[in-house]
This record gives sequence, structure tokens and C-alpha cells, in this order.
Amino acid sequence: MNKQTIRHLIEPEDFTIEELNEVVALGKKMYEAPEKYKEACKGKILATLFYEPSTRTRFSFETAMLRLGGSIIGFSDANTSSVSKGESIADTIRCMSAYADIAVMRHPKEGAPKLASHYASIPIINGGDGGHQHPTQTLTDLLTIKMYKDTIEGHNVAFCGDLKFGRTVHSLIRTLARYNTKKFILISPEELTLPDTLKRTLKEDFHVELQEARYIEDVISQIDILYMTRIQRERFFNEADYARLKDSYLLNQSKLSHAKKDMIVMHPLPRVNEIAYDVDDDPRGVYFKQAELGVYVRMALITKLLGVDVSC
Amino acid sequence: MNKQTIRHLIEPEDFTIEELNEVVALGKKMYEAPEKYKEACKGKILATLFYEPSTRTRFSFETAMLRLGGSIIGFSDANTSSVSKGESIADTIRCMSAYADIAVMRHPKEGAPKLASHYASIPIINGGDGGHQHPTQTLTDLLTIKMYKDTIEGHNVAFCGDLKFGRTVHSLIRTLARYNTKKFILISPEELTLPDTLKRTLKEDFHVELQEARYIEDVISQIDILYMTRIQRERFFNEADYARLKDSYLLNQSKLSHAKKDMIVMHPLPRVNEIAYDVDDDPRGVYFKQAELGVYVRMALITKLLGVDVSC
Amino acid sequence: MNKQTIRHLIEPEDFTIEELNEVVALGKKMYEAPEKYKEACKGKILATLFYEPSTRTRFSFETAMLRLGGSIIGFSDANTSSVSKGESIADTIRCMSAYADIAVMRHPKEGAPKLASHYASIPIINGGDGGHQHPTQTLTDLLTIKMYKDTIEGHNVAFCGDLKFGRTVHSLIRTLARYNTKKFILISPEELTLPDTLKRTLKEDFHVELQEARYIEDVISQIDILYMTRIQRERFFNEADYARLKDSYLLNQSKLSHAKKDMIVMHPLPRVNEIAYDVDDDPRGVYFKQAELGVYVRMALITKLLGVDVSC
Repeated sequence: MNKQTIRHLIEPEDFTIEELNEVVALGKKMYEAPEKYKEACKGKILATLFYEPSTRTRFSFETAMLRLGGSIIGFSDANTSSVSKGESIADTIRCMSAYADIAVMRHPKEGAPKLASHYASIPIINGGDGGHQHPTQTLTDLLTIKMYKDTIEGHNVAFCGDLKFGRTVHSLIRTLARYNTKKFILISPEELTLPDTLKRTLKEDFHVELQEARYIEDVISQIDILYMTRIQRERFFNEADYARLKDSYLLNQSKLSHAKKDMIVMHPLPRVNEIAYDVDDDPRGVYFKQAELGVYVRMALITKLLGVDVSC
Repeated sequence: MNKQTIRHLIEPEDFTIEELNEVVALGKKMYEAPEKYKEACKGKILATLFYEPSTRTRFSFETAMLRLGGSIIGFSDANTSSVSKGESIADTIRCMSAYADIAVMRHPKEGAPKLASHYASIPIINGGDGGHQHPTQTLTDLLTIKMYKDTIEGHNVAFCGDLKFGRTVHSLIRTLARYNTKKFILISPEELTLPDTLKRTLKEDFHVELQEARYIEDVISQIDILYMTRIQRERFFNEADYARLKDSYLLNQSKLSHAKKDMIVMHPLPRVNEIAYDVDDDPRGVYFKQAELGVYVRMALITKLLGVDVSC
Repeated sequence: MNKQTIRHLIEPEDFTIEELNEVVALGKKMYEAPEKYKEACKGKILATLFYEPSTRTRFSFETAMLRLGGSIIGFSDANTSSVSKGESIADTIRCMSAYADIAVMRHPKEGAPKLASHYASIPIINGGDGGHQHPTQTLTDLLTIKMYKDTIEGHNVAFCGDLKFGRTVHSLIRTLARYNTKKFILISPEELTLPDTLKRTLKEDFHVELQEARYIEDVISQIDILYMTRIQRERFFNEADYARLKDSYLLNQSKLSHAKKDMIVMHPLPRVNEIAYDVDDDPRGVYFKQAELGVYVRMALITKLLGVDVSC
């Protein structure tokens, strides 16, 4: 590939709405008829460069590449790689460009995948960088919304839990703002509200309606899409606050009884305590399906970045 | 697959004698003509979920799947996976069901693979859970006996070493009891004899003859199949007992000289000190062949659980 | 394969000059037309046994095997394998022989791959053993010289940096001595000069001209091939010596301005401080291309050792 024409996915903003829609639509087609694409990436190699632990994202990418007929190299722990010898990301990625056809990088430091993309001669996908971005989770979320609500536009979308630190939330909320989302409902304890700068961007640049709430119960009846996230104990100043608040951000059947019949509950997983097990069998709880859809949207993304012809 | 009809292998008792025989017979056919099956699992993915270290079991499964034309995802160390974020086994396996077509799990806690099987929508194989069960080692052992002794039934089978803790021994002895084994000869120091409850089961439920011995020399001339196991230093109350006893449970050419010419020596491996290197070149020492046969019986198991048609 | 006829590559001396040339020539053909060989090792399995961390060597081998249509099993960290249970290398490799068709081993102890080869019934490749040998890096270096200088013979070859401990340098220098190298120029601080025994061998057995230098500047104008290596801080007796010397062994554009126009700069990578980033865009800096060529020469080696017919 000519270095000038290589496309990367570092943050959702790297793709236009048309491109996001294209990937989502292709992901849907791949979900519906995966057999058609089983040789699409035959002979191609994906490098999975995971500088911090992950199961879901790594497996989702590996499964995606294997379902396309491709192969995998990579590491799941920086300690078992040369990185421990002090090599720069620039040098690592220049060598990886000689080994693989496309790479996904997860890194604890914000900006690492962006830096890598400057030196790569293959497409780089950001698999999560610190608290910053997680664009393939956003693609997964978009496909899930598309599958269950038919359109990505026009919904009341609520985010519940830790809205201050979650990279998943920030990536998705910025992207849904670019779609014609009706209203964002932000449910969190005071300590973990969405950052002011991001709120300002949503209001001033995207003119989207924001509503804030402290309790799920107060707003659940209005919600079309409820996006749950983990609340981490370490985020709280003291144990008493955590103990007092955690139940408010636990979704269970009792709270769900006030929700719309066609609301969907999403979660990037892994969950810890924030969704009760009694929600798992409710048809509105789509988080495991969401994980499954992540494979197909990543298949679509890989073929797009590799420039593989999938018009079959 | 319909969740109701999914088969798992958590312990050997999950299979009838007919089913065990079917897997062993297919393993034998695969060993004799592996080329015939090289595309049997094309497009299928095996997940290897190893929550504790292993080489042999993991590689044996991976080789089995690759020789069938399938692919692998997985982890060999729980620290490089999301498990470290506190996710439950139930949630992990529900996601894995979206990525892979079949999974093998090794876990330090007894019952973990069983629990996983309740939430999985793909077949789960127990790759060893704590001191509990190791059913694919048992299948390997059955195929080895079949190959060298022609029948699994009717032999004098001796177990030597640590009979108290070894999951391999317990799985195999329970299974051979279901076959028409002539006699079990149990050779161990007093500290490491077979648990009383298991002895009772063997006698009362299976009416199998049991003979106990302290020294290999005393019984070796009667044995058809000698199953050796590691004796771990930590199992002893004091160093003096260990030093005194360890040589009694070391098999060497001198002891072997009193054995039948067609006796076979098996070992689940890895060995440490319990079989002298001078036994390696004796045709009765079949433990490396046993490791090799493990690949083929796992190939047979994978095709059976996936419902792949291998009638070729 | 018949155990007698199995070939291993433990050190470059295991191959005649004719065989080295054959692998280099095949590597060049594979680089020029990789598509032709994409099914050459279909159905074959390479085991990557890395008892110490590596990225480049492991990925280079994995990519090589995948580009030939083969598959991979292995570990990248001895702690996640049975080795931690005290199994001998002899036993490990006997089992691996049942799983894989060929294996590459990296080990911190000198001689471990050699030992393994005695017990293996599959070809063993030394992927680096302690400070001893790294024969596939040497093959990579030979192919790089062939590609850029047309012949391996007849050049002024300089080695710069740590000439005392680097296994890469020792493997290559011994091999180039077997070719008709014009002169070796050895540039290093006094603390890190080439071992006397090796110097004696070069002079007495190979009658090759040796020139020693303390500074790159003094000799750079004569050099055809400049092989750079890392200087590790720990090698110095005191910090003051390190601080004083490290800049002398840093290659940058200023020093490069005195070099021949067609000199090439090689490096086994990873680099840390010894080549300035301003050299990366100079056409003489071929170290990333060198890493790329390593894949193709390993493809050639794998097919040779497996006895695969690649006459296409």
C-alpha cells in the first residue's frame, strides 16, 4: 500500500458519518451471512499488540480475523516482548509493518496508537489507549443500536455510572452527538459526572439536549437506550460514599419494571456489580449480543482498512 | 447449536462406555490416517482458556485443532486477560460463546469448568480443574491401552506413587472400574494411599479386586499396565521420610527386569524423578507415545462435540 | 522423518557455505515473489519455544510460517508453561516432537537448543541461546548484504559497539570469515573489544585482515558495511566511563557525511541510543529492511529443514 493512502482508526472522528454507516452496514451483512466472507482475508496477518491486559477486545479482533480466513500474530502482555528492552513505539511499529498486514494496539498511554500510526506502513487500529478512546467499542455500540432500534438517530440515550473516566462513554457520546440523537440523559453520582468541557462541546457544537439525573428511577421511563458502565470503588473519596451510592447505580428487574418495553440495556463489559443477574434473561438486556456483534463490526472494519473487495 | 443438545466433557462419567469407545476408536483411526481429517474443522475456532500454566495439555489441544484445519484463540495465563478485572466465569464464558465454536478450560478451582458449561452455548471441555478431574488425560490413557493391549478390559493395572492427590489417577481409576478391569494394584507410601471413599466405591459399586503394596518389586511381575505418577516433595511431613521413600517409587531397569515382557509403563508427564532415563529406550516405556496419542484422541473428541461428520 | 536424516540449525557452522548460499538465494526469491510459496507448508506446525522474551525473532518466525500457509503453537514466556514444573528440556522436546513439525527455541542458557536437538525427532532451530549463537540473525544479515551489495564476499565490514558480548556479532563475524571477506574493522571501547580467542581464530584459521579502532570517525570512509550494536550501560564499570564513551558509538548524519555513498548501515535491532533518528531516512540505513528480509530468509530455512519442495 502507498503510505499516503493508508487509513487508520485511532478515534471515531477519523471516519465520516458515511464511513461509520458503511462499516456498520457491512458488519450487519457479515452477521447475517458470515460464511460469505470466510476467505476475504486469506493470506493476511493481523498483529495484536496489547501493552495491557484484555480478553474481550483481543479475542474479538482475533475471532474477526480468523472468521475472515486470516491469521494472527501478537502479544497480550508487554513483558513477554522486546518492549522490555526499551525499544521505542516508532521502531516497534516499523518492524511490525514488515510482519503483519494490519495491527491493533492497546496501550496504557493516551496517544500511543496515534504515534504508532505516523510510523506504520500498515493500517493501525486503536484498541483502547488509556482513558482516551476506544473506537471499535463505539462501532460495536453503533451496530448494536442499528440492529435493535433500526436507526442510530432520534433516540433518548442514557448513560449511567462513571461518566467521568470511562473512555467507552466518551467515545460513544461524541459519536452519537454527530448523529441526530434526540436527548442524552446523564445518570451519575456528583463525583462522576461527565466532564464540563465535553458537556459544553455537546451543547455548543452539536446543539444536543442534555438532561442530568442522580437516580435511574427518576428517568428510566423516558429512555430508549440505557448504556450502563462500571463504577470503580477506587474512584470514591471514601468507602462510606461508595457504599451509599453503589446501589443507586445497580440496574435490576425492579427498576427495569418502569422502563419502556422496547428499551435496550447495553454495557461494554466486563460488568462487576452494576447489572443484577436477574436482568440477563430479560430481552431488553442485549449486552452479550452486543459483545457478539463486536466481532462482525471488526470484521467489517478490517476489510475496509485492508481495502479488501467484499462486494459479494 | 441448540443449547439443550450441546454436549460437554467435564468428567469421564459424562460419556457412556459406548461413547468413550467411540472416541477411542475414532482417535485410533485419526492416528493411523491423519491426512483424511485435515479439513474436518475448517472454519471452526477452539478457545483455550488456561487459568493456570500448562504446556502439554494446551499444546495437545492446539495441535489437535490445527491438524483438523481449525484455528485457535485463547490465553495461557489468567493475568493477561480480563479475569483480572473481576469478571465472573459465567460472563466470560457467555462472551467466549460468541467468539469460539468450542472451548477447553483449565482452572485451579474444582468445578469451574462445570459452572462454565451451565452458561455456555458452545461445548466446554474440562482441561483439568484443581485436584478434581482431567477427562482428556483419561481418554488419552484409554487410547494408549487400546493401542498397546488391544482391549481396555481384563488387565492387572497398577498405579504407583501419589495416589492421594493426583487427579489423573482418580479420573482414570474410576473409568477403568467401569470397564471390566481384572485387578487394581495400588503402590504408594502410607501417606499417599488412594482415598478410602474411592476405595469403597471401587469395591462396593464396581466389585473390582484391589491389592495394596508398598514396593514396586513386590508386585511388578503381575502387572500388565503400570501407571507411574510424580511424588511431590511437599506432600511429605518431613524431609527424612521423603529421602527414605523416594527411591522406592523410582522405576528403573533393575526393577523392570522382573516385569512381564509385554507390560507397558505409562505416565501422564511431566515426570521429574520417578522414571529413570534408562527406561526411555525400553519398548515397554510408552509414555512419550502416550503424549502423542493424546493429540489424536483430542481430535476425535473435538469432532464429536462439534457434531462434525467424520465418516470418511 | 528418519531421525538420522533430520537437519537442525544450532549454529551457522551446521551449514556449508553452499547451504548458506542456497538459503540466502531462496530467501531472495521468496522476497521477490512471496505469493508463489503461500501454500508451501500447508498443514505443517511450527512450535515457538521462547524461554525468554523476544518480539522480533518470534514474530519473524511466526510470520514466516504463516506466509508459507503453516500454523503456530508455542509459548513466549516459560512461566506460562510446564517448564515451571521442573521438566527437563529433553522431555519437553520429545513431547513437542509429537505436536509440531519443526521448532524454534530461544533459551537463556548456552547450549539448550543443541541439547534439545539430540532428543528431538523434528528439526530444531536455535532462536538465540544466551550470549552464544543466533544463526537466523546471521542468515538475515547475509541476505541483507546479498541484496544491497550483490555479493557477500570482498567487502570491508566494520562492527561497532559491544563486540565482547553480542551473540549477533560473534555469529556473523565467524560466518563472514568463511566467506572471502576483505577486512574486518572492529570499533569499540577498550572494555568491549572482540574476545582474543575469536581474534586469534580469525587471523590464524581464516587469515582475514583485522583492524581495530576506537572511533567511528577514524575509519568510516573505508567501510562498505557498518554493523552497529547496542552498548549496554551495565557493561561499564562506572557511570563516568559510560557517559564519556556512549557518544563515540552513536552514529548520526554528521559522522555519516564522511562515509561512502554506497555504504550500508545494519543493526540487529532493537536499537536504543546508538543510531540517531536522523539516519532513518538516509538510504544507507537499511536496518528496517533488514528486519523485513529476516522473514523471507526464515521462510527459506523452514522449507529447507522440512524438506519441502519449493522448486516453483
